[in-house]
Amino acid sequence: MTYIDLNYQPRESDLLVWFRAEPPAGKDMKYVADRIAEESSIGTWTDLKTLLPEIWEKLRARVYEIDEKNKYVKIAYPLHLFEIKNMPAILASVAGNVFGMKSVEALRVLDIRFPKELIQGYLGPKYGVQGVREMTKVYDRPFLGTIIKPKIGLPAKMHAEVAYEAWVGGLDIVKDDENLASQEFNRFEERLALTLEKKDIAEEETGEKKIYLVNITAPYKEMIRRAELVQDSGNEFVMIDVFISGFSAVQSYREEGFKMAIHAHRAMHAAITRNPEHGINMLTLAKVYRLLGVDNLHIGTAVGKMEGSAKEVSEIREEIQLENVPANESRFEQKWYEIKPVLAVASGGLHPGHVPAVVDILGKDIVIQAGGGVHGHPEGTRAGAKAMREALEAKMQGIPLEEYAKEHKELREALEKFLH
Amino acid sequence: MTYIDLNYQPRESDLLVWFRAEPPAGKDMKYVADRIAEESSIGTWTDLKTLLPEIWEKLRARVYEIDEKNKYVKIAYPLHLFEIKNMPAILASVAGNVFGMKSVEALRVLDIRFPKELIQGYLGPKYGVQGVREMTKVYDRPFLGTIIKPKIGLPAKMHAEVAYEAWVGGLDIVKDDENLASQEFNRFEERLALTLEKKDIAEEETGEKKIYLVNITAPYKEMIRRAELVQDSGNEFVMIDVFISGFSAVQSYREEGFKMAIHAHRAMHAAITRNPEHGINMLTLAKVYRLLGVDNLHIGTAVGKMEGSAKEVSEIREEIQLENVPANESRFEQKWYEIKPVLAVASGGLHPGHVPAVVDILGKDIVIQAGGGVHGHPEGTRAGAKAMREALEAKMQGIPLEEYAKEHKELREALEKFLH
Repeated sequence: MTYIDLNYQPRESDLLVWFRAEPPAGKDMKYVADRIAEESSIGTWTDLKTLLPEIWEKLRARVYEIDEKNKYVKIAYPLHLFEIKNMPAILASVAGNVFGMKSVEALRVLDIRFPKELIQGYLGPKYGVQGVREMTKVYDRPFLGTIIKPKIGLPAKMHAEVAYEAWVGGLDIVKDDENLASQEFNRFEERLALTLEKKDIAEEETGEKKIYLVNITAPYKEMIRRAELVQDSGNEFVMIDVFISGFSAVQSYREEGFKMAIHAHRAMHAAITRNPEHGINMLTLAKVYRLLGVDNLHIGTAVGKMEGSAKEVSEIREEIQLENVPANESRFEQKWYEIKPVLAVASGGLHPGHVPAVVDILGKDIVIQAGGGVHGHPEGTRAGAKAMREALEAKMQGIPLEEYAKEHKELREALEKFLH
Repeated sequence: MTYIDLNYQPRESDLLVWFRAEPPAGKDMKYVADRIAEESSIGTWTDLKTLLPEIWEKLRARVYEIDEKNKYVKIAYPLHLFEIKNMPAILASVAGNVFGMKSVEALRVLDIRFPKELIQGYLGPKYGVQGVREMTKVYDRPFLGTIIKPKIGLPAKMHAEVAYEAWVGGLDIVKDDENLASQEFNRFEERLALTLEKKDIAEEETGEKKIYLVNITAPYKEMIRRAELVQDSGNEFVMIDVFISGFSAVQSYREEGFKMAIHAHRAMHAAITRNPEHGINMLTLAKVYRLLGVDNLHIGTAVGKMEGSAKEVSEIREEIQLENVPANESRFEQKWYEIKPVLAVASGGLHPGHVPAVVDILGKDIVIQAGGGVHGHPEGTRAGAKAMREALEAKMQGIPLEEYAKEHKELREALEKFLH
């Protein structure tokens, strides 16, 4: 009894998974492929008296490609195996027990191809790139944002003041840090109210729409209570640590039907995505989050303090933004049908000097976020925000930063500190 | 400005984290320790104009031990850094961005020591070991369970019949598989109703209390809807894929106050726990789940189809069951105060021949689960269940299996198939 069928032609309706598998000593790729297909569909480690022929015929996974050189295994799963609208349970099949089997030395999910019937069971982003552009009337350039720093420690009132400085300095977006929740010195309710007051003032003074990404990460019921407060306040966005909160919370949150857009921070993702031979790659997680329906998603910077190569980060950007993603040497073709594109967020160790490179790598439909790169400016937050805006102006006008900096003091000071 | 203070004596109220860190080329352990402490508390990659002296004094993390040889870094976090009752946000601090920093080559969380004040903010298990023993009147031996196999494919009616066979054969517990949710051929509502009917009959016929672990893994709102159905049905347990569902869902679910005990399956955990140099180890995850309040937790078998050494698995067992866990060379001392012990579940590739070894390694306060090892019996499920019960009887009476098998046909047949 084998799950390998190299003549099998995957059906349009199959869910496909692309694994990279490391066989244990003395075993070959065929052995490993069979064990993965078995454990992730209907089998177990021994033959069963309860496995009826019709189940075998209708529901078994099929290994349809084995690439010995790259250690790739491609498996097709009939859609009937899954409860379509239950992402946690789908992942429990294809990305659950398989990582812990002794019959693989290491195992990595490189991609999941979702079929149309499955995609139709998910909402995708409520706003996406176009929706956030309409919300802000910013159509022709990347968005600029900051994370209030220090990550933890500012009282709510100072948090709001620092946010104000960032907005009037020229940034579009201010974000809570991923671990700011409702600490005793900075309670959620107070921070929300005070920061939104400052946002109104900043909008009036600048004539620009400003965005506040307030972190509602919490146990689910409390997350919902906080989301209701945000909705009542009229704010347009919430932020969620999507990986840590978990697939059950994120799918359900999106289905609750709140008006706010979702900014997805990916804290902890690298515990599962970073090892190139094991775990789940960021491309796959990003596809899941697009399907579940986040509007903004952190995907890496390629140039800042976080790992992730330019090629990897731009492929993730394509995956969350294109309507039809073409196949290449390490990903499936993926059609997204009615699911909207997600605004990509580059965040982590950025400063004004990085702006041109980030735009070159990721294009215009992004948020460029700098925390230390704004609040670490020698003249403080407002000057740091100005420097970011100046850097973006220079890039959009095709002027080298060093040249633009001659006439722009804040940018000059930033480059002096961060580049020299 | 450094977060390293090797003279610092951690306070009882500090949250402590034990990391293993791999420095990047050209960097030493001090550099790495500083970067981890910074990113996981109040800092970022550059100095900030907004970092007030009082925040630095009150909220910064302190690296209080560096072990160059083992690459260990121990960091103390003041409890004020955290919102105590928000596990997702706590993890976003100490086990969030740090995994993705370029300034570590690899990073693993080996333990988190939770202080009393934090522990008091969590419910822990509602039942735990003692509660499940009272529920079942099984006081003097491990529990025996099976997972209905094939994992996916049986219609609800057959699922219930196979469950019945397992119960009357002598098992205490029948469990859905981790990826069985509400597929079209086996809807949740129908499976629950039909399986509970069979459970009543099995209880009547055997005079024993039987347990059904029904999988409610789903987007949160749907998970709650299913939990309500389970509560209305009078069933005593639910099962949740805790890692895949996520910390937000699990904490909130426990706080909803349902009557049912929680059986925690850990599917996908190995994507994060398996690499010995990166991610979060199972010991740490197990502590988090004990705190959040699961009653049963899969911790490995040391002998079946899943990875995990005997030493590792027994240390996890201690961690979730002892009232005071003593420190050793790779874990902190941990006092659990009012938090109850969790029933440990050994599951994955087990058959009757494994029973004595599992009891030797893990003791009596466990559930021994066999899926293939029951339904793969040459005479089918009921005989497989009998063989498991016979193996346990032999072990509890101190009789070698091969000897007991001479007078016990089902055990003999099982050993012939699985051992020879």
